[in-house]
Amino acid sequence: MTIRVTVWNEYRHEHQNEKVRAIYPEGIHTTISSFLRAAGIEARTATLDEPEHGLTDTVLANTDVLIWWGHMAHDDVRDEIVDKVQERVLDGMGLIVLHSGHHSKIFRRLMGTSGNLKWREANERERVWVIEPGHPIAEGLGEHFVIPHEEMYGERFDIPTPDALVLVSWFEGGDVFRSGCCFQRGRGRVFYFRPGHETCPTYHQPEVQRVITNAVRWAAPHTIASAPVVNVTEPLEKIGG
Amino acid sequence: MTIRVTVWNEYRHEHQNEKVRAIYPEGIHTTISSFLRAAGIEARTATLDEPEHGLTDTVLANTDVLIWWGHMAHDDVRDEIVDKVQERVLDGMGLIVLHSGHHSKIFRRLMGTSGNLKWREANERERVWVIEPGHPIAEGLGEHFVIPHEEMYGERFDIPTPDALVLVSWFEGGDVFRSGCCFQRGRGRVFYFRPGHETCPTYHQPEVQRVITNAVRWAAPHTIASAPVVNVTEPLEKIGG
Amino acid sequence: MTIRVTVWNEYRHEHQNEKVRAIYPEGIHTTISSFLRAAGIEARTATLDEPEHGLTDTVLANTDVLIWWGHMAHDDVRDEIVDKVQERVLDGMGLIVLHSGHHSKIFRRLMGTSGNLKWREANERERVWVIEPGHPIAEGLGEHFVIPHEEMYGERFDIPTPDALVLVSWFEGGDVFRSGCCFQRGRGRVFYFRPGHETCPTYHQPEVQRVITNAVRWAAPHTIASAPVVNVTEPLEKIGG
Amino acid sequence: MTIRVTVWNEYRHEHQNEKVRAIYPEGIHTTISSFLRAAGIEARTATLDEPEHGLTDTVLANTDVLIWWGHMAHDDVRDEIVDKVQERVLDGMGLIVLHSGHHSKIFRRLMGTSGNLKWREANERERVWVIEPGHPIAEGLGEHFVIPHEEMYGERFDIPTPDALVLVSWFEGGDVFRSGCCFQRGRGRVFYFRPGHETCPTYHQPEVQRVITNAVRWAAPHTIASAPVVNVTEPLEKIGG
Repeated sequence: MTIRVTVWNEYRHEHQNEKVRAIYPEGIHTTISSFLRAAGIEARTATLDEPEHGLTDTVLANTDVLIWWGHMAHDDVRDEIVDKVQERVLDGMGLIVLHSGHHSKIFRRLMGTSGNLKWREANERERVWVIEPGHPIAEGLGEHFVIPHEEMYGERFDIPTPDALVLVSWFEGGDVFRSGCCFQRGRGRVFYFRPGHETCPTYHQPEVQRVITNAVRWAAPHTIASAPVVNVTEPLEKIGG
Repeated sequence: MTIRVTVWNEYRHEHQNEKVRAIYPEGIHTTISSFLRAAGIEARTATLDEPEHGLTDTVLANTDVLIWWGHMAHDDVRDEIVDKVQERVLDGMGLIVLHSGHHSKIFRRLMGTSGNLKWREANERERVWVIEPGHPIAEGLGEHFVIPHEEMYGERFDIPTPDALVLVSWFEGGDVFRSGCCFQRGRGRVFYFRPGHETCPTYHQPEVQRVITNAVRWAAPHTIASAPVVNVTEPLEKIGG
Repeated sequence: MTIRVTVWNEYRHEHQNEKVRAIYPEGIHTTISSFLRAAGIEARTATLDEPEHGLTDTVLANTDVLIWWGHMAHDDVRDEIVDKVQERVLDGMGLIVLHSGHHSKIFRRLMGTSGNLKWREANERERVWVIEPGHPIAEGLGEHFVIPHEEMYGERFDIPTPDALVLVSWFEGGDVFRSGCCFQRGRGRVFYFRPGHETCPTYHQPEVQRVITNAVRWAAPHTIASAPVVNVTEPLEKIGG
Repeated sequence: MTIRVTVWNEYRHEHQNEKVRAIYPEGIHTTISSFLRAAGIEARTATLDEPEHGLTDTVLANTDVLIWWGHMAHDDVRDEIVDKVQERVLDGMGLIVLHSGHHSKIFRRLMGTSGNLKWREANERERVWVIEPGHPIAEGLGEHFVIPHEEMYGERFDIPTPDALVLVSWFEGGDVFRSGCCFQRGRGRVFYFRPGHETCPTYHQPEVQRVITNAVRWAAPHTIASAPVVNVTEPLEKIGG
């Protein structure tokens, strides 16, 4: 069955920063949706400045996995849209949060924590190590891969213990980071993936594309259903017998 | 070192329902704070209708573990107070959420899920089984204990997978429930404990008091500190060498 | 891709007990392999009294998921065969351990714990509740299903905390049990599934067959590879620079 | 209450290698037991070549937490002693496995996995990062600490997902490693702590001593009891009513 992905991008850096535009001329979302389509996945895009941030009820109802890239405008995302996305995740939609999305409203909402971390912009080398080689998200990766230049994210990363920790990064400047983290929330699967600073060509790199493609397949739901609140009036077994 | 507990109670049922008042004449919070004090724990109380719901900055700054009982008035708890409680938990304060608190703002906030479940008011027998006898919260309990009459809560309980599942309940009417669940959020420890319907004398029962007392000791923080967001300007190791 | 399952059965009760033989005339393994085949899965069988317990190197090398039913003859399973099965699981083969297999050498080996539990043979009613409705092993099940007559298994069940707890059983006689537990060991996925006492027709029940079929699909490996021990003589980065 | 620790050391390198003897003239076990005693903990020692490896029934019965250092002679540890240690851990004794103990019989037994990893002897710099600052084992540590010269251990480390991951190491040569891992097995708490190559003065370093001292306090049991296998002849509730 085809997986239907919506790639959401804040899409502000690309308009304001020539360097970012040079790397992602049509936006980060277009780069991501293109490599997903090349992998046989149905991918559309949505951006912050569209009506309802491009995430109408119809779009969400037809999305199996939502990918989220945001950074400078987290506060511009309206709470009622975040409410709807959260509800859809709890009902079963997959969610992949990229890079600076660690501070997005939706990620903090689903984690219950601050998402705080350390960071450094020094265009340093990142080595992404595979901790769980048997996990579907690690399929086709070697023992580790190198991103030549990236922003550093360092621990302590304020998240709940992931259900599975798939990737850990080593940074040239001396730091480590839990870069690939799986969480179950309701019926939905959530994956946080660290790389992707806007001034680095990270999403053009094959290993990074492989991780995101694998994560889409892992996060795709079997079924979508709401968690009920049910007043059970008739007991299954006799009470007071 | 003395543990400082604040027992928070919505304190509405006791005013409106004679049956509840008969069981808890001075409120659920007073019953709980009394048995904690008898166990050598420093316990104060706070209720919804006090200014700032009794949870001023000073109170929170002097609370090691907060106990939460709420039910009919979850929506009356102001968001800015919930913000402060969440922040304090992430900094290290312990939190024990009781019974109908599964739908409180603070619990849903920290879990990221709906907290939905099944329920039935039939005054049925509950058997609370110890799943992790080596866990500090299970200390001094036998293999299981019986609560003669309780409201039923049944699965699916919409929470993230607990870090430790200490107690599971069997209900006379045919249901099961994860009744004692541990979660780490930031530096804070969170314990959800199922029993405690307002029309049952549950908090007068020694085994229930033992669980709550154990949970207070387990959840008490070693240190309190905020998760920092740090821009690391100087790397630890030379970059680009 | 077709999943290749080997259904292993001790196959002693069927020879010694007429009641068991009446329910499983060709053995529990034949019943299980039949419903798997009907679901489009390639299934063969192996039993204790075959040479090498039917688990030759060739059989194991061609098995994606191994199902294990044993009870009275755990000690007759040779350690060198257990070694090979363990190694194959760590390399990626799925393993589904049924019922009394909680005390099998292979399960204890992979868990590191005793696998001890309570039990009672009283042909009582079991209600198997779905705790994680979004998990692939729960697909197609309702909120719970009833097994009319089963042996009881009760907590404390001495296992490590499962990575996911999918099913919890309620028993008529007052007990609860973690009946569907997922574990990752090496690259392999392990599922423990409680039901299946030899004198009950449990494996003829559609819901039970559904759980086992789902578990086979969940446990099937993507890739098979050994965990290496590598002396890295050349560092990736310059040391002592 | 005083915690009673037994520090077990293989104690072979110290006899065969002058460099090791220079660092630990009376053996690694003596260094460790000394700093534990200085912290108010009751510590004795035991070594491989003593009768029963120094781990008689009496010693084990009087040990709350066992610390294990072994490397070149894992195979010389007799299986019946490993059986007893495993049983005592499952009953509640804490176990701290150091460094090359990742391949010890007892660690592999309790994990169910191979314990395989990468390694490199290049006397490189290790930075040990605190991932869970709120965990008792991290108490009193800063954000990270440096071990100037150590053997490298690198991922993939073949262990089950830890219940808590407290420490992750960065290595100068480009690798990362899960260096502080907590596991519950039966009633016992197990902590694996990576540092401590015999030719490095690691156990003389205050931060390393702090981790081990904290781990002893964390792993000390509340109660010791065996997991029972119980045939429950009388049900708690009426069956077939």
